Amino acid sequence: MKLLEINFDGKNFFVSSEEFISELKKSFIGNFKLGTLFLDLIEVIYLCEIRNAIVREKTKILNIENLFEKFYSKNLLRKYYVYRDWKNRGLFLTFLERIKKENYGKSPIKKYPSFEFKIPEEYKKIKFYFLEDEISSISFDPKAKELFENFWFGQYGIYKNYEKGKFLFLDYIETLYLAKNGFKFFDFSNRQLSYEDLEKAIKKKFEIADYLLEVYEDWRNNGYVVKTGYKFGTHFRLYFPGASPTKKGKEWQHSKHAIHVFPQEVKMPMNQWARAIRVAHSVRKTFITAIPKARKEEIETQIDYVAYHRKENNEVEKPNIDKPSFLITSLWEDEELSGSYLANALKIADELGLRLLIAIVDKESSITYYVANKIELPNSKCTYYEIEWINP
Amino acid sequence: MKLLEINFDGKNFFVSSEEFISELKKSFIGNFKLGTLFLDLIEVIYLCEIRNAIVREKTKILNIENLFEKFYSKNLLRKYYVYRDWKNRGLFLTFLERIKKENYGKSPIKKYPSFEFKIPEEYKKIKFYFLEDEISSISFDPKAKELFENFWFGQYGIYKNYEKGKFLFLDYIETLYLAKNGFKFFDFSNRQLSYEDLEKAIKKKFEIADYLLEVYEDWRNNGYVVKTGYKFGTHFRLYFPGASPTKKGKEWQHSKHAIHVFPQEVKMPMNQWARAIRVAHSVRKTFITAIPKARKEEIETQIDYVAYHRKENNEVEKPNIDKPSFLITSLWEDEELSGSYLANALKIADELGLRLLIAIVDKESSITYYVANKIELPNSKCTYYEIEWINP
Repeated sequence: MKLLEINFDGKNFFVSSEEFISELKKSFIGNFKLGTLFLDLIEVIYLCEIRNAIVREKTKILNIENLFEKFYSKNLLRKYYVYRDWKNRGLFLTFLERIKKENYGKSPIKKYPSFEFKIPEEYKKIKFYFLEDEISSISFDPKAKELFENFWFGQYGIYKNYEKGKFLFLDYIETLYLAKNGFKFFDFSNRQLSYEDLEKAIKKKFEIADYLLEVYEDWRNNGYVVKTGYKFGTHFRLYFPGASPTKKGKEWQHSKHAIHVFPQEVKMPMNQWARAIRVAHSVRKTFITAIPKARKEEIETQIDYVAYHRKENNEVEKPNIDKPSFLITSLWEDEELSGSYLANALKIADELGLRLLIAIVDKESSITYYVANKIELPNSKCTYYEIEWINP
Repeated sequence: MKLLEINFDGKNFFVSSEEFISELKKSFIGNFKLGTLFLDLIEVIYLCEIRNAIVREKTKILNIENLFEKFYSKNLLRKYYVYRDWKNRGLFLTFLERIKKENYGKSPIKKYPSFEFKIPEEYKKIKFYFLEDEISSISFDPKAKELFENFWFGQYGIYKNYEKGKFLFLDYIETLYLAKNGFKFFDFSNRQLSYEDLEKAIKKKFEIADYLLEVYEDWRNNGYVVKTGYKFGTHFRLYFPGASPTKKGKEWQHSKHAIHVFPQEVKMPMNQWARAIRVAHSVRKTFITAIPKARKEEIETQIDYVAYHRKENNEVEKPNIDKPSFLITSLWEDEELSGSYLANALKIADELGLRLLIAIVDKESSITYYVANKIELPNSKCTYYEIEWINP
């Protein structure tokens, strides 16, 4: 292969030779304007590393080390790793500045149905005790067993063997939900606690309790059964209507969704987030990220690339010819992802009608990709995305 | 079955009837003293729920609801769930106050061998650039490729396809380790950075970097290869000596250990910790918790039970006859576990020659158990435990 020479004029990287322009255009590298192919620094480094290109600045030759010394800017390496990985997969990608800002209509929304749900008034007479230090509630009322059997609130007796139990246990989200719906709670000196008392005690220990409640309400009020997702490393797991704790054996309906609530002001390391998705994936549950409305706005979001993927016939999508499929935002494995960063990136992707791909770069140059698919749930207060691990 | 009656004299719960004493003694429930069997509140609740016992206080009868109203104390419910679960498995357990304080010799220590390791001086001439905002380093020096090939420091080129790469990448722990061992680091304006400069920049972003380094050194200096454990949700993964990134196919040595570093001043929700163990387990890696020495001491630790398990012949161990096997400390799934809480509990277990069992109680009364086995690694600064999920 002929030595590929890239020019640098102190401002831009470019290729003028027709032969090289034609070679690079085939790989959809560079931005062609008025007879010249302009290259981004990322593209230049890629060509130096993979294609043994050299860069000429007047009489000097710049190698890859010189490029880093001269032009290194924030997160260059992480972005470069993602670029190289995508190219090495035989796929194409470009930069946000190089595409038309329109709605590409490539982010189909998945609809989740709504089912009627109402708790009959008769249950609201059940007396609950709130255990402040264990942030949960119990009831010894015989009617509490029915509340469990018919609506799967709390846990009566022992999991999957409830019959011989003597009391119903509610976690703090169930406590808040039932209190909001007219159930009565007392402490052990039989003082009645208001919803505000309960909320205050719970929020002291679990700051994001109100966000969790919003998500719980979104699904419960649509008829779904929402239970703890502890075993799957998420806040909740979800059952479709009809699921019941009294069914046995083959009748038992399995949960197929794990919900993780990601408030905008919460930050979590990427690896923790990825781990939760990984666990959900390993137990064959769909991982849903719930994004409550922001209490305060902030943050700029970094969109690194616009990426082309594959068509239904498995042919590779091409820039200039096909519509792109993804926006890529990338992060180091130990970088923190904030809820609002994610929310903004998802919003930008939604506006362009593309799906967001979150690329996590590990310390050994491997990239893991997660794609977000928007969900529609009737009358919901939060926005929801299914997050899926993909191997592009 | 005859109605089991428990007496309460305003201070103690007890059973005096010989018939019931003999029944309960068979289940190793209660503490026999001078002809009377004294019961703990937990045991009383258990007998009320499972055995339909009643409690008599003078002329009054107390049911399970009355017991909670009258005697509820911190974490009673969580402790009760663990007690009930252990009993329902057909196993026995008692309280720390009821056993002799001696070393039971039932916590065998697993020894990890040491292997010689030294980096030859010739490599220390390699020039590294430190990328402050990406908290990592790169080198374009041709010798850097050998450092990767021979000692598996960093990542050269692409993971499992390194040959065509043009530079070596180091993460921040590798950066600190090599800097401490005499390697030189520069910024892109070719100013040399001291170890202190690097440490300061790294600790600004990763507070626990120095703890991670201690663990990294413990293993590296014993000849092991330590790499990021990102994919398994832990800080590190571990290879035995002889592992090399240049080996291909069947020659490739797989990592069999995932290391999670848990400094004493760090707190993490139980479910996050459990999730990491779960991922390690699902990829068949041994999960190792590293506990660095405390910078400051604190915290009291709650040991809930002394538990009897099974003998080698699978017979159930019995109090008064056999030695116990475990100390149990229990936590709610969303409670926070602090490194020092864990360290203290492990210390108490070590002193008694028992193994620590961490019982995590979920919101549906299910208990997940994790057992800790001490590891011995020569000249190590931290203490190490293999943590294993068990189904007792």
